[in-house]
Amino acid sequence: MRATVMYEAGDVRVENVPDPKIERPTDALVTITAACICGSDLWPYGKMPASDGPARMGHELIGVVQETGSEVATVKKGDLVVAPFAVSDGTCEFCREGLQTSCVNGLFWDSDKNAGCQAEAIRVPHADGTLVKLPVAVDSVLIPSMLTLSDVFGTGYHAAVVGGVRRGSKVTVIGDGAVGLLAVLSAKRLGAEQIVLMGRHTERTDLGREFGATDVVAERGEEGVERVRELSGGHGSHVVLEAVGNMPAYQQAVGVVRPGGVISRVGVPQYEEAPVGFGSLFGPNVRLAGGPAPVRAYIEELLPPVLDGSIEPGKVFDATTDLDGVPNGYQDMADRKTLKVLVKP
Amino acid sequence: MRATVMYEAGDVRVENVPDPKIERPTDALVTITAACICGSDLWPYGKMPASDGPARMGHELIGVVQETGSEVATVKKGDLVVAPFAVSDGTCEFCREGLQTSCVNGLFWDSDKNAGCQAEAIRVPHADGTLVKLPVAVDSVLIPSMLTLSDVFGTGYHAAVVGGVRRGSKVTVIGDGAVGLLAVLSAKRLGAEQIVLMGRHTERTDLGREFGATDVVAERGEEGVERVRELSGGHGSHVVLEAVGNMPAYQQAVGVVRPGGVISRVGVPQYEEAPVGFGSLFGPNVRLAGGPAPVRAYIEELLPPVLDGSIEPGKVFDATTDLDGVPNGYQDMADRKTLKVLVKP
Repeated sequence: MRATVMYEAGDVRVENVPDPKIERPTDALVTITAACICGSDLWPYGKMPASDGPARMGHELIGVVQETGSEVATVKKGDLVVAPFAVSDGTCEFCREGLQTSCVNGLFWDSDKNAGCQAEAIRVPHADGTLVKLPVAVDSVLIPSMLTLSDVFGTGYHAAVVGGVRRGSKVTVIGDGAVGLLAVLSAKRLGAEQIVLMGRHTERTDLGREFGATDVVAERGEEGVERVRELSGGHGSHVVLEAVGNMPAYQQAVGVVRPGGVISRVGVPQYEEAPVGFGSLFGPNVRLAGGPAPVRAYIEELLPPVLDGSIEPGKVFDATTDLDGVPNGYQDMADRKTLKVLVKP
Repeated sequence: MRATVMYEAGDVRVENVPDPKIERPTDALVTITAACICGSDLWPYGKMPASDGPARMGHELIGVVQETGSEVATVKKGDLVVAPFAVSDGTCEFCREGLQTSCVNGLFWDSDKNAGCQAEAIRVPHADGTLVKLPVAVDSVLIPSMLTLSDVFGTGYHAAVVGGVRRGSKVTVIGDGAVGLLAVLSAKRLGAEQIVLMGRHTERTDLGREFGATDVVAERGEEGVERVRELSGGHGSHVVLEAVGNMPAYQQAVGVVRPGGVISRVGVPQYEEAPVGFGSLFGPNVRLAGGPAPVRAYIEELLPPVLDGSIEPGKVFDATTDLDGVPNGYQDMADRKTLKVLVKP
């Protein structure tokens, strides 16, 4: 089959690779009908050393089940399914608590160099714990919105949930990528009163306003921080949803959060150490939350409003390509020419 | 009057200083009848440069009101009162929310080099917001327990509250100082099922067991982490109460916390940067909470069980001295000869 392989920063290829096969009785084999390029794929695209490659790419998928192992009970051949960016068994203590990203038998697609969703097919381990059947046809107009349940919508929603956004919250969202925009939608859904979106790309922040942002701040750094603090009435936001992952975004979050507030991170940190002492988090009793989103935990909750059309998270897709167009899709996203690229293998 | 002054690390003196006076209509003048030396006083005692001195010391007090400014309404001359380690006006938006340490008109005694509670008297700004009248006599046997409401008990309780300790929680407490031991008492009070106390001083950990610790781990570092993880059943503690404040304690907290759990810090951080990235907090969705405790918010809640004798937080005091003995009191605490020294000026 054909699949996307990254050799090093800037070098993405579509190549023939061995067909996946059922290996264990809990596996399912899925033909991928919709995948996408994620903002987090741009981190390796920007800096991955050749020694980390070649690595298969992509961690978001919708597809049709082709075959199932003997122990798979909840999906069958022909079902249209969505898979989260992390495999989980659905039965361990973490899965039962809704923290599937810490599943004791779990796997992040990104951590397996021989598996990726920007491809024609994939072997899904722990199919019962991982896959969710979708009650629509493979060519439904709802597919883009449903595909966001595999990562970006669930990730934005996780930020808002663990940040404790509730009715009346003043929220700042840092980052106008797909996750940031869907964090806006999520904060709105949870009742936030004020949602300040920090982002510089007008076509994106316009979508942010459509999703519920009450204010947009294009300035960055100290100037941006000052602007948000003014908008919040002086003391900052109760909850900051940080959807970028670099140190300037972290510092911006520390700058705009209100004493006693929460910084909720879902942008994958490109740093290990960060300020957390008296002068940053400790003194004002600011809490730090977030991590890779257990999106599997949110699919059942977020599917109905997608199905009835009351929310349209799929609007974050502004380009579509086949597999051959994937390398250009990476470059277009890196150049900020497109927000998020849908891939139809 | 006489007061304690630190000139630099290791150099604590008791000297004559100007008598405090009412300066504003919201002030109260308090004759101090009980004060103490705090574990956090040992940080400057260990490393304060001479350029930061001379600085008056002490931030915990019980005393008798001698005089009040014209606008003070809730306490009067002759009242026995307790003051938290932070002054607060009691009326700003943070005070109303119970985050008095972020009071917009607030002050930490420690940040004022000309005020300290290890002294004969003190001027208390914002007396109505800061002071709480105590319904006992100045020589009550409950004074030591009530004095813990000014800092160490409220601080241990804050750790447990913002850590989200609840019925059934598995908790680890790092540090067997007064705050750590009272964090044990607090976790017990909030219903924790397992309370592992990490500490090496048997006489202290024995008191920890009396306060509710179910297990004691004397090992540190990797060995200590392994031991706690075994005790927790393999995955670590839901909540870690970090009552030390140095980097080894932080690292230990990261090592013993369960995925999805909380590290709640009340030990004043002696670092500004710390690991928070994918390999420490982010990957396992671990939350970081805590800060200087708004102990004023907890006094009304914690006073009744102290008054009826159902808890005895004052057991953390194992030595008493007059003002002249304060310099030796610092040294004894630094040498771990005493746990916490009560000062009767």
